[in-house]
Amino acid sequence: MKTMAAILLILSLVGFFGVPAFSDPDALQDFCVANLKLSNDTPINGFVCKPASAVTSDDFFFDGLSKGGDTSTTFGAAVTPGNVLTFPGLNTLGLSMNRVDYAPGGLNPPHSHPHATELVLAVKGEILVGFVSTSNVFYSKVLKSGENFVIPRGLVHFQYNVGKEKAVAITTFDSQLPGVVIAASTLFGSKPDIPDIVLAKAFQVDEEIVKAIKSKF
Amino acid sequence: MKTMAAILLILSLVGFFGVPAFSDPDALQDFCVANLKLSNDTPINGFVCKPASAVTSDDFFFDGLSKGGDTSTTFGAAVTPGNVLTFPGLNTLGLSMNRVDYAPGGLNPPHSHPHATELVLAVKGEILVGFVSTSNVFYSKVLKSGENFVIPRGLVHFQYNVGKEKAVAITTFDSQLPGVVIAASTLFGSKPDIPDIVLAKAFQVDEEIVKAIKSKF
Amino acid sequence: MKTMAAILLILSLVGFFGVPAFSDPDALQDFCVANLKLSNDTPINGFVCKPASAVTSDDFFFDGLSKGGDTSTTFGAAVTPGNVLTFPGLNTLGLSMNRVDYAPGGLNPPHSHPHATELVLAVKGEILVGFVSTSNVFYSKVLKSGENFVIPRGLVHFQYNVGKEKAVAITTFDSQLPGVVIAASTLFGSKPDIPDIVLAKAFQVDEEIVKAIKSKF
Amino acid sequence: MKTMAAILLILSLVGFFGVPAFSDPDALQDFCVANLKLSNDTPINGFVCKPASAVTSDDFFFDGLSKGGDTSTTFGAAVTPGNVLTFPGLNTLGLSMNRVDYAPGGLNPPHSHPHATELVLAVKGEILVGFVSTSNVFYSKVLKSGENFVIPRGLVHFQYNVGKEKAVAITTFDSQLPGVVIAASTLFGSKPDIPDIVLAKAFQVDEEIVKAIKSKF
Amino acid sequence: MKTMAAILLILSLVGFFGVPAFSDPDALQDFCVANLKLSNDTPINGFVCKPASAVTSDDFFFDGLSKGGDTSTTFGAAVTPGNVLTFPGLNTLGLSMNRVDYAPGGLNPPHSHPHATELVLAVKGEILVGFVSTSNVFYSKVLKSGENFVIPRGLVHFQYNVGKEKAVAITTFDSQLPGVVIAASTLFGSKPDIPDIVLAKAFQVDEEIVKAIKSKF
Amino acid sequence: MKTMAAILLILSLVGFFGVPAFSDPDALQDFCVANLKLSNDTPINGFVCKPASAVTSDDFFFDGLSKGGDTSTTFGAAVTPGNVLTFPGLNTLGLSMNRVDYAPGGLNPPHSHPHATELVLAVKGEILVGFVSTSNVFYSKVLKSGENFVIPRGLVHFQYNVGKEKAVAITTFDSQLPGVVIAASTLFGSKPDIPDIVLAKAFQVDEEIVKAIKSKF
Repeated sequence: MKTMAAILLILSLVGFFGVPAFSDPDALQDFCVANLKLSNDTPINGFVCKPASAVTSDDFFFDGLSKGGDTSTTFGAAVTPGNVLTFPGLNTLGLSMNRVDYAPGGLNPPHSHPHATELVLAVKGEILVGFVSTSNVFYSKVLKSGENFVIPRGLVHFQYNVGKEKAVAITTFDSQLPGVVIAASTLFGSKPDIPDIVLAKAFQVDEEIVKAIKSKF
Repeated sequence: MKTMAAILLILSLVGFFGVPAFSDPDALQDFCVANLKLSNDTPINGFVCKPASAVTSDDFFFDGLSKGGDTSTTFGAAVTPGNVLTFPGLNTLGLSMNRVDYAPGGLNPPHSHPHATELVLAVKGEILVGFVSTSNVFYSKVLKSGENFVIPRGLVHFQYNVGKEKAVAITTFDSQLPGVVIAASTLFGSKPDIPDIVLAKAFQVDEEIVKAIKSKF
Repeated sequence: MKTMAAILLILSLVGFFGVPAFSDPDALQDFCVANLKLSNDTPINGFVCKPASAVTSDDFFFDGLSKGGDTSTTFGAAVTPGNVLTFPGLNTLGLSMNRVDYAPGGLNPPHSHPHATELVLAVKGEILVGFVSTSNVFYSKVLKSGENFVIPRGLVHFQYNVGKEKAVAITTFDSQLPGVVIAASTLFGSKPDIPDIVLAKAFQVDEEIVKAIKSKF
Repeated sequence: MKTMAAILLILSLVGFFGVPAFSDPDALQDFCVANLKLSNDTPINGFVCKPASAVTSDDFFFDGLSKGGDTSTTFGAAVTPGNVLTFPGLNTLGLSMNRVDYAPGGLNPPHSHPHATELVLAVKGEILVGFVSTSNVFYSKVLKSGENFVIPRGLVHFQYNVGKEKAVAITTFDSQLPGVVIAASTLFGSKPDIPDIVLAKAFQVDEEIVKAIKSKF
Repeated sequence: MKTMAAILLILSLVGFFGVPAFSDPDALQDFCVANLKLSNDTPINGFVCKPASAVTSDDFFFDGLSKGGDTSTTFGAAVTPGNVLTFPGLNTLGLSMNRVDYAPGGLNPPHSHPHATELVLAVKGEILVGFVSTSNVFYSKVLKSGENFVIPRGLVHFQYNVGKEKAVAITTFDSQLPGVVIAASTLFGSKPDIPDIVLAKAFQVDEEIVKAIKSKF
Repeated sequence: MKTMAAILLILSLVGFFGVPAFSDPDALQDFCVANLKLSNDTPINGFVCKPASAVTSDDFFFDGLSKGGDTSTTFGAAVTPGNVLTFPGLNTLGLSMNRVDYAPGGLNPPHSHPHATELVLAVKGEILVGFVSTSNVFYSKVLKSGENFVIPRGLVHFQYNVGKEKAVAITTFDSQLPGVVIAASTLFGSKPDIPDIVLAKAFQVDEEIVKAIKSKF
């Protein structure tokens, strides 16, 4: 069944390592292109590097954002990540960039990045972007091509295609691996799952509704 | 009506300034006891200080955690914050501490701190503590008196009193003001509110259910 | 005379405050929208904020990048900055974004950002992007639409439109104000100027050539 | 002979690695549970991690503070550390917590933590807590159960049980490994030792007194 | 009476503000020359700046280290500080430098800097430099002109002129204001003073000896 | 041919690893003396350490600055570096120090350090020191023995011996490895080289002049 594909795609790419990122420590050298294999064997805070002598111009180049993902998913949106796991040259450099494609009505559902601020640039279409502050104020705007909206670190936010056409956004982060906590799947789709009673109390609904939502994730 | 008291208490105290905190910058002096009034007039990143000559031992002392809050709230839990807004001596010092009291069955509902790691110490009772990683794994444990559980920064977590008696926990943070994003009230109780259709899609429920949940917050 | 317009535009916008930026300290609150006027009166490391109660959705919004600058300049390129000086909502958030438009043959001349890493995204055209490491290795690539190249912090780099059409790039930085040190104008166009003999020795040319270059800046 | 047991206990547990800690760099992933053995073989700044796939809920759990240490020591106090060396799940998370038990008259002698701020919470008894600022001002307070006192980073401080009963405190730190410099044993008990004449001059006493103090450490 | 002059000189100059420094946050602009007077009125974490337009070359210049202090003091040593309080141009720049002059037998007594690492450069004479690690190991060396010794942050260290002539050292710090905790005067000379019984227990001496030492500070 | 010796010396020593440094992350232990060989095999952000048990006083000692380099070079100046590559004990400690010797008329040519602030101390002679801000203002001063000038991070600066005798300076950095971007050789001497047309446009000179300058580097 295709349901949850968007979430799983995001998780498999972004969360592959169990790794979001916070305010990244500064580099101690020009660059430290990640050696992902070796880092799998000896995991550290960040990644082990390729020797500088083996680094070429291609290590600083990434063409993964030139095409968008398939938006025929549960949410009608596809996130194509350009972070250290797909673009190892970003290791220690403190930046990453995603492309998000939205079908009409497509949603990048409410989520937060454990530390990274996000700067959204609409490239195409009309996109409602909003976040909720810790004072519970919802700030939002509809973006058109070339317009920006900034999401402070750690706050819950979403983008929603309110136009009639496909939409595309570029999202940039001040972290090599911003991590993602998708609200709905974190709460209702973790393994093992959060006890029904906790969610029923938190959302003030019957446990039946909790079970029903969980069945979708 | 008493409903929502716990959330409002937390928001009014912790969110008073619209301010959670991330990895705090280091102090440039021994201390910089916050002058909250002056900081209200000229807000900066952090707080303006009292002159060092006006600082006394009382500025480093706080007795706000010696008594717990009233747990006869929606969630049967009360958070008593000991952060820079209630304990101004913590300004620039990178630490804060809350007390949480739980009635039997009381819940500190799923929430995250935009940057701070949290180290939970159970003081009394039996408390289920858990968090969900960005790989969607739920890690949890039931804590008894004197036992610890650590919540990595930015991840969604909760505490739930699973014992028959009242319970008490001390939660410490590596930030003078950890901030709090309570999942349910952020999503369903912000002002203005997040459009029903966004939440209905995100949680894969009917808009009627979204409206019903919103009515509680 | 129109010569130097590109440099002056960049300097007047980016350097208005005498301020590049390094690895930014973390925010101590959700946001701290800069009050540029008040910060002019009492300058601090960064900027004083607007009161949170005065902040609206518009503070997080910026439409300055939706149109490109005039490329009929000395270098055939125009940088439109989206940093804290033009987009005050970025204050304390650690990110900024510029748009660069290039006429055919247009050049964003060799420069460095005192701290920020730069992630270049080609939006249109064919752009040669390159940087020189501290080991004096030149890494470069020709980018087409949707392709990225990353410039490690502090290194000298440039972009050059090698296509036959206009080109556009989006450049993002892990700093609210990356600052810019343009090699040629820093060396040959400062006020007061660097002594001729220093430049003649450094570049191993006659002082006449130094004077000739200076006359252009 | 039992003398020095408290110091040796502290040193053997906290100092095992020759490692205090300063303001910790931020994590680049959710967590990085320390693999202490592997880190012994290839020491880095911090610790190498267990693979994320091997991490379980137990890694975030610690019950070492549920019992206090033996206070029949030289100083009548026992520090039970909950830092990264005893609780490896704290690695990269920027927090740690100790328990201190005091017999009547027990003293946690004057010491400093090279970087960590310390937030003291009295759990039981009456404890005099004080620190000396770099301006040589002594700030202090007697704490009772539930009361806090904060010690700015790097300053000399102590706790002294001034009550008639046993006392207990919880001390928390904004570092995974705060390190400890105990004034008396650092000065009079190092190996090799600091020359007598240096200490005699510094404390303005006869060398005989220096020798006498050294004999105790 | 002249006794304690060295300590008072150091304290009055270095500690004037009650301010040591830790790992300094990064600058957000080229420079931020401290306005010490204005900073006295509205103290912040660090210092308020002079307007960039008022800054001249003289703000980056300091000639305070060209002459040494008077070494006819208690310890036969004089510290001449070049930190942000005497050289305001250092504000936000993360570095400072002291000059230390030693009479024959002169001592810069055991002390620590709450955060700064110190790199000692012997300029003249023969100077014993040593520090004690948190594992209580004493590392030391006699330095001659042009030789370096590095003192890790927060550790207790001293310099002692073991030659027959005057000696001079330059000490550099990775902080604009390293702060200083002089062991003997912190413990025995604070105002108010640390209770005799605490010091007697800590150093394992009679209270009479404590009183005798206190009388010197 | 001897030409370029100064540049090559600097590059071979300082740039050996392709590594400048930015604001260094804080140490997580007392020290972490670099094991340069092992770090060559498994490069990380910074360096792998020697085991603490193998560390001796010699690891904190460096005598490389006691003699100056040969100034009979292209520029009449010689930089003797005391950074983590020559003095491995500096690893994680955030400081380094160079010695610069200048023949009469000798020049340390315009360059920048990607992150480190530099504090210059003239030891001998008369040295013109200057930097250009990002607002293109040139700040400078002639230093005599014992005088300081501070260079904010990332800005282009130089030192020039304007006296009739040899001169010597000590330069200190808030980084274990400041890195160096020498303006002329970065622009005109990289491998491969920056296209002539880019440099001709940037400096507004004929390509013939570019080729002529390149032939010297």
